[in-house]
Amino acid sequence: MGRKGLLLVFSGPSGAGKGTICRALLNEIPSLRLSVSATTRPSRSGEIEGKHYFFLKRDVFKKMIEDGQLLEWAEVYGNYYGTPLQYVQKTLAGGNDIILEIDIQGALQVKEKFPEAVLIFIVPPSKSDLKLRLLSRGADAEGEVARRLACVASEMNFAWRYDYIIINDVIDRAVSNAAAIIRAEKSKPGYLEDFLRNFSDEKTSDR
Amino acid sequence: MGRKGLLLVFSGPSGAGKGTICRALLNEIPSLRLSVSATTRPSRSGEIEGKHYFFLKRDVFKKMIEDGQLLEWAEVYGNYYGTPLQYVQKTLAGGNDIILEIDIQGALQVKEKFPEAVLIFIVPPSKSDLKLRLLSRGADAEGEVARRLACVASEMNFAWRYDYIIINDVIDRAVSNAAAIIRAEKSKPGYLEDFLRNFSDEKTSDR
Repeated sequence: MGRKGLLLVFSGPSGAGKGTICRALLNEIPSLRLSVSATTRPSRSGEIEGKHYFFLKRDVFKKMIEDGQLLEWAEVYGNYYGTPLQYVQKTLAGGNDIILEIDIQGALQVKEKFPEAVLIFIVPPSKSDLKLRLLSRGADAEGEVARRLACVASEMNFAWRYDYIIINDVIDRAVSNAAAIIRAEKSKPGYLEDFLRNFSDEKTSDR
Repeated sequence: MGRKGLLLVFSGPSGAGKGTICRALLNEIPSLRLSVSATTRPSRSGEIEGKHYFFLKRDVFKKMIEDGQLLEWAEVYGNYYGTPLQYVQKTLAGGNDIILEIDIQGALQVKEKFPEAVLIFIVPPSKSDLKLRLLSRGADAEGEVARRLACVASEMNFAWRYDYIIINDVIDRAVSNAAAIIRAEKSKPGYLEDFLRNFSDEKTSDR
């Protein structure tokens, strides 16, 4: 079958649990691949080149932007971050599905270039639940929780531009919802183009 | 939650197994309801009023057409068949999902009136597979198999107008694909409108 893979883009407010969901999916679905981002920020201790990031020099990254070799990119606090196009294209052409775990701006850039990308927004069940999660992580450095809660309020306005929303109340249910979305996307006529063509072309004797 | 139910429309070539899939889904998902069609044809032995069909007089059926009380209808060999609108609307408003098992023309009528309806096309894995199924059913009254195979070829042209296609190769997989489609549809922003609104309206103390 000449089926191409799915381009799956996950984003959502920090603390919503998208990392956990993506890791569980990668464990569960062997054909899934994770896209590795490129960045110009220095690597931190424990980070592995090609696993956590591709660490690039600024001039290399800028050349990739110019040459259209990035599916999406952004500059954050003076560092560049982006998704190398080549690995994504190769994975999809090989018939594997690929996950991008990127921010909202990046996700919308991807949708513009690849309208067939599947955008999934992971959200906490409520603001008060998110607040509890952030506090229990101990991540509360002076007003950090308040800052994140203000952030989530504005991020939620983008939920409408996503194809799917997964409410992460119970992690197992959230993961199986994500798996269901993947199955559903593979049941769309566009994805089954080859099957439909082969079906029509099949010759059967008249009886 | 003021969530409305899903309107699920199943069609597909005869012999593809849509009846089996719909029955399995109704068993598996307690909130699912099956829509009962109305018809003017006489009831056959064993058929129960309100379960297999609502058996109506021609003038009653025609009045329903005039009054816009049918979601879709058709005249086949001189008899009318159609889907009463009221039961569908009541079921959806009550938050339950409803299955319509109807032909292609009916499905396309429904999509026109209810663009949010989810159209699912059940297909056999191949023409030769369908041929085997039809023969093994013993349904081969003189050229019947050839007639059905000719039919399926033209019916497959409508597959593109459906939201989803389920290839019924293994029945359990077909049923779980259908269940996945239902879960995915319930993860769309439009379906989660109330959740998104409630989320935004929620007040949390600043920390």
